[in-house]
Amino acid sequence: MAGPQKLGFLGLGIMGYPMAKNLLRAGYSVTVYNRTREKAEELARNGATVADSPTEVGRRASVIFLCLGDSDSVCQVAEKLLESVQPGSIVVDCTTISPTVSRAIGERFRKRGIAFLDAPCSGSKAGATKGTLTFMVGGDREGFERIGEYLRAMGEKIFYLGGPGMGLQAKLTQNLIGALIFQAMAEGFVLARKAGLAPSSVLEVLQASVARAPLIDAKLPPVLARRFEPNFSLKWMHKDLGLMLESGRQLGVPLPATALVHELFGASVAMGHGEEDFAAAITLLETLAGVEVSEPVPDSPRLES
Amino acid sequence: MAGPQKLGFLGLGIMGYPMAKNLLRAGYSVTVYNRTREKAEELARNGATVADSPTEVGRRASVIFLCLGDSDSVCQVAEKLLESVQPGSIVVDCTTISPTVSRAIGERFRKRGIAFLDAPCSGSKAGATKGTLTFMVGGDREGFERIGEYLRAMGEKIFYLGGPGMGLQAKLTQNLIGALIFQAMAEGFVLARKAGLAPSSVLEVLQASVARAPLIDAKLPPVLARRFEPNFSLKWMHKDLGLMLESGRQLGVPLPATALVHELFGASVAMGHGEEDFAAAITLLETLAGVEVSEPVPDSPRLES
Amino acid sequence: MAGPQKLGFLGLGIMGYPMAKNLLRAGYSVTVYNRTREKAEELARNGATVADSPTEVGRRASVIFLCLGDSDSVCQVAEKLLESVQPGSIVVDCTTISPTVSRAIGERFRKRGIAFLDAPCSGSKAGATKGTLTFMVGGDREGFERIGEYLRAMGEKIFYLGGPGMGLQAKLTQNLIGALIFQAMAEGFVLARKAGLAPSSVLEVLQASVARAPLIDAKLPPVLARRFEPNFSLKWMHKDLGLMLESGRQLGVPLPATALVHELFGASVAMGHGEEDFAAAITLLETLAGVEVSEPVPDSPRLES
Amino acid sequence: MAGPQKLGFLGLGIMGYPMAKNLLRAGYSVTVYNRTREKAEELARNGATVADSPTEVGRRASVIFLCLGDSDSVCQVAEKLLESVQPGSIVVDCTTISPTVSRAIGERFRKRGIAFLDAPCSGSKAGATKGTLTFMVGGDREGFERIGEYLRAMGEKIFYLGGPGMGLQAKLTQNLIGALIFQAMAEGFVLARKAGLAPSSVLEVLQASVARAPLIDAKLPPVLARRFEPNFSLKWMHKDLGLMLESGRQLGVPLPATALVHELFGASVAMGHGEEDFAAAITLLETLAGVEVSEPVPDSPRLES
Repeated sequence: MAGPQKLGFLGLGIMGYPMAKNLLRAGYSVTVYNRTREKAEELARNGATVADSPTEVGRRASVIFLCLGDSDSVCQVAEKLLESVQPGSIVVDCTTISPTVSRAIGERFRKRGIAFLDAPCSGSKAGATKGTLTFMVGGDREGFERIGEYLRAMGEKIFYLGGPGMGLQAKLTQNLIGALIFQAMAEGFVLARKAGLAPSSVLEVLQASVARAPLIDAKLPPVLARRFEPNFSLKWMHKDLGLMLESGRQLGVPLPATALVHELFGASVAMGHGEEDFAAAITLLETLAGVEVSEPVPDSPRLES
Repeated sequence: MAGPQKLGFLGLGIMGYPMAKNLLRAGYSVTVYNRTREKAEELARNGATVADSPTEVGRRASVIFLCLGDSDSVCQVAEKLLESVQPGSIVVDCTTISPTVSRAIGERFRKRGIAFLDAPCSGSKAGATKGTLTFMVGGDREGFERIGEYLRAMGEKIFYLGGPGMGLQAKLTQNLIGALIFQAMAEGFVLARKAGLAPSSVLEVLQASVARAPLIDAKLPPVLARRFEPNFSLKWMHKDLGLMLESGRQLGVPLPATALVHELFGASVAMGHGEEDFAAAITLLETLAGVEVSEPVPDSPRLES
Repeated sequence: MAGPQKLGFLGLGIMGYPMAKNLLRAGYSVTVYNRTREKAEELARNGATVADSPTEVGRRASVIFLCLGDSDSVCQVAEKLLESVQPGSIVVDCTTISPTVSRAIGERFRKRGIAFLDAPCSGSKAGATKGTLTFMVGGDREGFERIGEYLRAMGEKIFYLGGPGMGLQAKLTQNLIGALIFQAMAEGFVLARKAGLAPSSVLEVLQASVARAPLIDAKLPPVLARRFEPNFSLKWMHKDLGLMLESGRQLGVPLPATALVHELFGASVAMGHGEEDFAAAITLLETLAGVEVSEPVPDSPRLES
Repeated sequence: MAGPQKLGFLGLGIMGYPMAKNLLRAGYSVTVYNRTREKAEELARNGATVADSPTEVGRRASVIFLCLGDSDSVCQVAEKLLESVQPGSIVVDCTTISPTVSRAIGERFRKRGIAFLDAPCSGSKAGATKGTLTFMVGGDREGFERIGEYLRAMGEKIFYLGGPGMGLQAKLTQNLIGALIFQAMAEGFVLARKAGLAPSSVLEVLQASVARAPLIDAKLPPVLARRFEPNFSLKWMHKDLGLMLESGRQLGVPLPATALVHELFGASVAMGHGEEDFAAAITLLETLAGVEVSEPVPDSPRLES
């Protein structure tokens, strides 16, 4: 590999915008594209070249990052990139999409001599801004080695998980586990609250046990404060659970609790909570139980330890 | 209350035996009873007085600890204690039983002027031996204050949660959450493994995320090693989930994921895993999926970060 | 056995009252008892002898029927009957209770030389009134043969299922299946309705298929009319599902769908529908989906076949 | 429209072959196409014209029936038909596919002046052979009226359900309800059998109740005989439940029991039962419970009524 490559970045949303900014800050030359052009213009002030179309990004850059919304968007953009990206280039998809779809898209790039990696990330908006994301990468190893420096400009922890789709598989495993831990919290705390326990006491007791979980530490405070501004929105979590169920179907792995939580989260989406943080899914259980996980609890004792 | 009380201890099983020993070590006078007398005799060497019946413990002691197996055992022993315990005494039940049953038993003691506290603990055999248990106490506050010094001889963290049954309610909340976190791990790792990911890689990635959990850190190694010696046995976890469902039924709180996990764990109990650690519940999903969560995974990459 | 026996009947509720009346109409001598004495007095006009206590019924009668609410009521009444019923008599429990509890109670009667049969029935109030009930009987065969003539005075179909508890086991199987068929209807019709299909059209199509079910034919009209007067109340159905889950736990049979439906019905009970017909359980799903299974559907076509 | 149209038929599988034959028997002129040409040649003896490609059918016929395997096959065939079918023609898809996919395909035909109807059918191979199928039709009403005579040559009951996709929505509702009734039977009968009841006795009792169901009458005998030759294969039922869940997701209708049964059926597919009748799904529960729903039951009583 000689010298730094020309980079491209498609999709400047909540995650993509600060990620691209970090690449620019690191001194790379980046051509950007966004459906809503304004976000791209903002990055021009940081030195980005603004492209008029995905096709143009494909022509200008040899290492291209995607950070889009869902499988459909990735398919559409890929279709256009396939028209213009040069053999020898590399496409890195940071979107969380179906591993199956990702493998199919990657195959088409590879047939034209273009490397393709799935590299979904976690760490949310804060991590994207601070450059402390975690990347989970699948695809061929040589491609992975070529993009290391760019990923390190955007993130702190970089994992190589194996062949095509493996990054996504790992990322979705994480979300599946996170969703079920949240459901554990929801059922446990709604029951405890209706039994008359103060949520803060239950949390303190839980934290002294092996059943403690950082996700519960993070999600209980917004539940108590009834603040559901999205850190990770319910509709995306619901979508990701759907991708896991699809993966389970294809691989022949039954996922009974995941399927149930998917339906419960789906009910919350249907009731209008899709744009809120996935912590809002607790309101379904609260409604059914006729109780709210909040303080103070009448007559609850002060806890001591 | 002036001066140290005469203590009693009923139930010298895996937990009760080391707990009673710690009371003796702390210098208290303890009368012990166990259905199998040998375990009691062993403690005689540590200074314990061995009683021939629960009734005798009731006559000799004014602060009596129970550490039995289930609601039925507690009911039977309580029946005998009610014949002999003196008004002004205090009975402390460390068994994890139904909060409803506990309240009913406690009511009968209170009517005779005897305080009754539910004080289930967590920390397993190791915590009981080292005296580092966590106690979750329910019942009247004055009673709680009278037993503080004894609990501190057996444990490190002592929580007062409120009125009768509240200690149990908190303890069971912990177990409910632990069981569901385990199911999250089981579904996530079985799917990941069948997709070709190495479990150790998935764990490392998970530990870099908000979905990490001490329970998963603790349970994955024995799963990988296929070692299911009980730390907390599946049959007791299954029983405790049943108690939570009963509690949910009484309080009007639907617990859909808990109900599902209870059935799945029940299936594993029925298939002969009841005496193993509850981590053995993963084998059901493994059987259904035709894969084992073990290493090495053929062709799995070395992970780097 | 020579000649007709003196009969006793305890519990004159929605079912018991018309059942006892049918025994009187058939010419039998019946001593009745009910907690609320008025109901008993009414039957006095039909020739019944009114007793002041269960114990008195036990003294007067040698074939005694129970038709009570739940396991607890049966236990309490059994306690009193054990004081007065003569050896050689027979006690027939028509209440739907736990097979395990029934076996334990029966054992105590049998030890005193009194036969005990579980004989739950189906057919609802209408069947009880017309004498067209179905009885499902468990217990020893000789006892079953002794009560045939009385059951025929109250019902049309009499099944002998085997040893103690087997009648209950069969009855509860029926209710389990009925509850799950109802859930099938609820999920199918709520989805169809939200998709814009007229419920009456879906029913007509369904009736032309192997998936048709008398229970759906019976329950859809009250759902469409939003009339939930109890034929079989949700709280009793919920209780019966709980008994099945207990039975599954004891026998080592996982019942995942039953466990889920039990929680969903429990949520509807918690939301105040317990006294309504179990068809009211559909309102939970309707609330979650934001749609009501009712006619007319805007723009729905007329169906033709 | 004057006079009989030239018909086309694509897909001569288990259902399509006898359906096309019935159209020929009724005297219609039919051009047929099948991937495996032999099946088409067989129909040539009945007077069919054999086409070399879907495109050719599109050129020759003005009323074209599809009877294929899944959404993908329908999409591929539709692509070819769009090249050759004349405006004013009508395409009738009898395949059970996603209502969403069906609407999208239909839209493309309608844009070219070609009517498109979804007309899935039920009645299985026997109904297709005897011409006693039930058709559930969605799409525009005028189109429906134009094809009535042809559907009557293949079926007995023809339902018009409304706009595009409504026939599929109704058909899938039927399958959802059928699948859940089967799960009801599975849980009820496995529990009853393990409790010691004879399956035939339980069936007899059930048939005397409102919980009886033709589907159970049909599926219990093959379960008892352990014969799982497909009438409707588990893999197709599993696929159809997946379509319903997709529909529920799009419409905002949670389907918790359907989602659970989908996972359980999926586990059975993964264990190798996909090609068997969906009644084979009971073996999963039997394995978990360690019992087989079969006769004779040791010591089971003869039933009488």
